[in-house]
Amino acid sequence: MEKLVEELKRKFRPKIKPIEWKGDKLVLLDQRFLPFETRYFEARTVADVAEAIRNMVVRGAPAIGITAAFGMVLSLVEKKPRTVEEALNTLTSAKETLAKTRPTAVNLFWALERMYNKATEIATSTATVDELKSALEEEAKRIFEEELDAEIRIGLYGAELLENGDTVLTICNAGGLATGTGLGTATAPIYVSMMLGKQVSVVAPETRPWQQGARLTVYELIQNGVPTKLIADTAVGLVMLKRLVNIVMVGADRILLDGHVYNKIGTLNEAVLAHEFGIPFYVLAPTSTIDPKSRVEDVEIEERDPDEVRTARSNQGIVYVTLKEVPVYNPVFDVTPPKYITGIITEKGVATQPLYKNLRKLLNM
Amino acid sequence: MEKLVEELKRKFRPKIKPIEWKGDKLVLLDQRFLPFETRYFEARTVADVAEAIRNMVVRGAPAIGITAAFGMVLSLVEKKPRTVEEALNTLTSAKETLAKTRPTAVNLFWALERMYNKATEIATSTATVDELKSALEEEAKRIFEEELDAEIRIGLYGAELLENGDTVLTICNAGGLATGTGLGTATAPIYVSMMLGKQVSVVAPETRPWQQGARLTVYELIQNGVPTKLIADTAVGLVMLKRLVNIVMVGADRILLDGHVYNKIGTLNEAVLAHEFGIPFYVLAPTSTIDPKSRVEDVEIEERDPDEVRTARSNQGIVYVTLKEVPVYNPVFDVTPPKYITGIITEKGVATQPLYKNLRKLLNM
Repeated sequence: MEKLVEELKRKFRPKIKPIEWKGDKLVLLDQRFLPFETRYFEARTVADVAEAIRNMVVRGAPAIGITAAFGMVLSLVEKKPRTVEEALNTLTSAKETLAKTRPTAVNLFWALERMYNKATEIATSTATVDELKSALEEEAKRIFEEELDAEIRIGLYGAELLENGDTVLTICNAGGLATGTGLGTATAPIYVSMMLGKQVSVVAPETRPWQQGARLTVYELIQNGVPTKLIADTAVGLVMLKRLVNIVMVGADRILLDGHVYNKIGTLNEAVLAHEFGIPFYVLAPTSTIDPKSRVEDVEIEERDPDEVRTARSNQGIVYVTLKEVPVYNPVFDVTPPKYITGIITEKGVATQPLYKNLRKLLNM
Repeated sequence: MEKLVEELKRKFRPKIKPIEWKGDKLVLLDQRFLPFETRYFEARTVADVAEAIRNMVVRGAPAIGITAAFGMVLSLVEKKPRTVEEALNTLTSAKETLAKTRPTAVNLFWALERMYNKATEIATSTATVDELKSALEEEAKRIFEEELDAEIRIGLYGAELLENGDTVLTICNAGGLATGTGLGTATAPIYVSMMLGKQVSVVAPETRPWQQGARLTVYELIQNGVPTKLIADTAVGLVMLKRLVNIVMVGADRILLDGHVYNKIGTLNEAVLAHEFGIPFYVLAPTSTIDPKSRVEDVEIEERDPDEVRTARSNQGIVYVTLKEVPVYNPVFDVTPPKYITGIITEKGVATQPLYKNLRKLLNM
């Protein structure tokens, strides 16, 4: 597998690059305008990067982490500190600014900590400012590379389950746009299959209320040459009943050790329908998504602004699709009980049923 | 039951009147602008009525039938025929014009035939033009009254299944807007429960692609004082898992004798999820919806314009929510196998499992 991972990493040329580091600036594909306009956002300062994260130019936990890591490097490009001490002050301030952008983004804090720890580690040796900057640049690239490495492995494990001619049903966008690498998690087996010469197509549901399926998944799959069909969220049952799809692959926001999966609202619908109609249902996510501490009673399902359901994102901007005063229930994600899940695919391998046992095995617990 | 039906018919005062006959004109609630604007469309000629049906001022099979019936009466108001023979010619021409408006609307042809047959029946006796006109006016009112009568009975059978404090999950709009009476089929038990002093609330899914839930069901329920919450179609699983609803009530486009139900796309999702989570799932429709001839192999699921999925109906008109060139699968309805259905509620009573046996019993077959 190791040889294949390296080969695929070399060969991987995504048609969309959500995050590109140019040495003195970070070029971000501006996801606010997708799919209607392909615009890029150039970040040259920490303030630019903070704005990009806060205002959703870039979205998806891994993508935010990678962006923040390069934001730390940019702070040194921007402020040109003359001493290592000045450089550490600059980084402390950048870290504080960036940490405030998205208060619940775990990957964001993790990436900032890692970058800062790297800096203090280098600073204790006899490094120059230039050496410090190079080391941080390498570290940010390494975060990106590690993310891509994990996704390639997820893609390879997932691709083993796909045959030539298969059609995958997904949900939301657990694609290259969300992870920043262009490969993604739920989409990784599709892109890897293509690189291995298999033809796989996708059915993408719109995924209301944010329409990440219609706006992002459809966009990136088509850009990458994957035959894709968009459906309304109401049609997921019928495409399974009619066997227009033969496998389901979705991402995850959080996975509990007993196999409960939290993911975008609508995942539960697909899981139960797949279970009932005998269609394999796989969750694809890095092991960092596994939360070994929480139990299902502990996790509260976040509700968001009712206006997200009352509106739609369109080529005319955000428009109302119903009355402004109608009461709304807008849960962000749902929870899928383990019995509906065929397997969980991570960079370390695939946990099949019983999940409560095999997830621990995967993590060597 | 008969006394209660008569009492409820007298007491029924819907807050919205989709179709109102004024003696010399037909006033239609213009459903194209709902819920953003409450506009009325006044039809004074057969051409006006044809336009209203063709352009979806009025929609829903029973509502179209009632509108067409009054359109026949309007033809005599408009043309003022002097002899019974002239009147019959006027009616023939009106029937032809109206029949062309919606080529697949069964209720439309049925209502036009019934009105025309009534006219020829009257004409054979020694009727005057005025007597003919009065008889037709009565016949059109009778079509409306018969529809309302059936819905009140559906409402009463359905209300027996609802307790004070219950929350009903529905789909699409099988409400008073669709049937023209203001009572509806899937909504009838809710309105009847209210008239009987029970408090019932509703969770209405948006129902993409046409958003009949967000645009019509939410509008009519709120107008009638029913506590209502709108959800995205993706949230139907979670509201059942969390027991935020305790019964599902939906309409039907066609019911086969073995219990297969064709209804708005998304019905199958709700049926399977309800079955899995142990929530009763009822289909509400008049017995005229039962198709005693077709088998599931015979019924083709109609696909509609892909642009319906690519767009949304909003306060800014029809807007694109994805790329114009993305391939789409847009089935209009889905089919729910009988095993997922707790019962089918008609004006003649409730068919419970086994449906293949009890539907025949209900129809005295």
